[in-house]
Amino acid sequence: MELTSNTNILIVGLGVIGGGYASALTKQGFRVSCITKNPEDIAYAKERGMIRVGTTELDPNLIGAADLIIFAVYPQIFIDWVRTNQVLFKSGTLITDVTGVKGGVVAEVQSFLRPDVEFIAAHPMAGRERSGVEFSDDRVFKGANYIITPTEKNTPEAIAVCRRLGELLGFARISELSPAEHDETIAFLSQLTHCIAVVLMTCNNAPSLEKYTGDSFRDLTRIAKINDEMWSELFLWNRDALLGEMDRFSNEFARLRAMLETGDREGMREMMRASTERRALFDKPTV
Amino acid sequence: MELTSNTNILIVGLGVIGGGYASALTKQGFRVSCITKNPEDIAYAKERGMIRVGTTELDPNLIGAADLIIFAVYPQIFIDWVRTNQVLFKSGTLITDVTGVKGGVVAEVQSFLRPDVEFIAAHPMAGRERSGVEFSDDRVFKGANYIITPTEKNTPEAIAVCRRLGELLGFARISELSPAEHDETIAFLSQLTHCIAVVLMTCNNAPSLEKYTGDSFRDLTRIAKINDEMWSELFLWNRDALLGEMDRFSNEFARLRAMLETGDREGMREMMRASTERRALFDKPTV
Repeated sequence: MELTSNTNILIVGLGVIGGGYASALTKQGFRVSCITKNPEDIAYAKERGMIRVGTTELDPNLIGAADLIIFAVYPQIFIDWVRTNQVLFKSGTLITDVTGVKGGVVAEVQSFLRPDVEFIAAHPMAGRERSGVEFSDDRVFKGANYIITPTEKNTPEAIAVCRRLGELLGFARISELSPAEHDETIAFLSQLTHCIAVVLMTCNNAPSLEKYTGDSFRDLTRIAKINDEMWSELFLWNRDALLGEMDRFSNEFARLRAMLETGDREGMREMMRASTERRALFDKPTV
Repeated sequence: MELTSNTNILIVGLGVIGGGYASALTKQGFRVSCITKNPEDIAYAKERGMIRVGTTELDPNLIGAADLIIFAVYPQIFIDWVRTNQVLFKSGTLITDVTGVKGGVVAEVQSFLRPDVEFIAAHPMAGRERSGVEFSDDRVFKGANYIITPTEKNTPEAIAVCRRLGELLGFARISELSPAEHDETIAFLSQLTHCIAVVLMTCNNAPSLEKYTGDSFRDLTRIAKINDEMWSELFLWNRDALLGEMDRFSNEFARLRAMLETGDREGMREMMRASTERRALFDKPTV
């Protein structure tokens, strides 16, 4: 398949990411429909012109008409949905996802998927600390990273379509990683940071701290407003990699603590200079 | 003293904070002068109308004319400067600071300060990850917190002037803490967060991580661009409190790690819900 103005795109799960995708793809001229569990979310999206049609039902016509299906739901729901409903897919349909873990998910879906349907996995590295379609905003994709995780079961054509999808959504950098590399990378960049934010938020219950805080604490805890259902699932899906990254962080944290305790000013300064230099790599590309 | 349009304000140290103070106070109609080490910084500030006069010299007339002197320099420089040059102060001058540690600094300065001059300490909880007057911006004070740390040596009049100064600078919440309370609070809210950012930045040297990152890692490491000279000094001034806060964080981090390792989904979700609820307290007041 190719992405043309005739491509029918179905989004399953109209939350904060699915909603952003719907807005961006509708603006790009695609026919976007959706299936989601909450009728109010459909009404919200239709009022704003984000989707053409939406339903809470498993509508065989809608599913059977889709050339590209994007799953923007939790990992286990995604797996179960495809297993149960793949009989309704049109032959040649391409499916993709936005799931934050890939190892178990990609191999599992590709193991039972119909041979005439292809699943190419992707992870948009843009989110919000709120959930729900009413917090969706396609501007968060501008300048952001998009990771595609192809396997040996994927065709060059599907990878190309997925790259094009990332471009159309507005992502600035589109990369490919194996599912295992993805999970290790995300354990560090995304899951560990959420662990740290939550721990910072819960480790000190002193009253009135909000009266004294500066922006650094606010920045480090922005993501401490966290969807507990989704993130506990993501953590457990990626347990071994995340435990490894937590230990990596703890070891370096202990190294800094030891320098502070012994008054090793030069050691601390060297670490801070390395930090400053490396951080420059991570500035968001200007778009 | 009172803050009136006739008040002469002298800022010592025209960096990112001193520069922001100069801009804000000049806009409020005060006569603002400065002493700083770099002549280019004075030229920069004069061109932009941030100050009336500035010098790199210890000008006795300028110092002797000041009703309020604000020190925006590193702690040790502040202490040494006052000790050496207090002979030049006018009787009745009020001095204040922006120093990020208070325990050793406030007691030390108050111990040797001339009896006809008063030092009231304050800490603006607004900074930038860059240093230098060219990065100064008085808008960072809007909506931010301002902490005054009076001791038994301070008069109600000086505390009132310091509060008024915080208001004029644009701070939204002005609070008082003892120097010891301040240092413990700041060890957690500010110093620990800088430790975490630096450690996140230096603990993983995998190449190309910037191609895969999302905003959460960017947010948690914004302050990983760090002034190594200043922060190593601040850490060492507040060593015991900071070591305590690092241990507090590590213990809670270990608790989350244990829940992940044993697959305690409900425990993790409970911690995340507590985090989400508590984080709402820290949203910046809208101004």
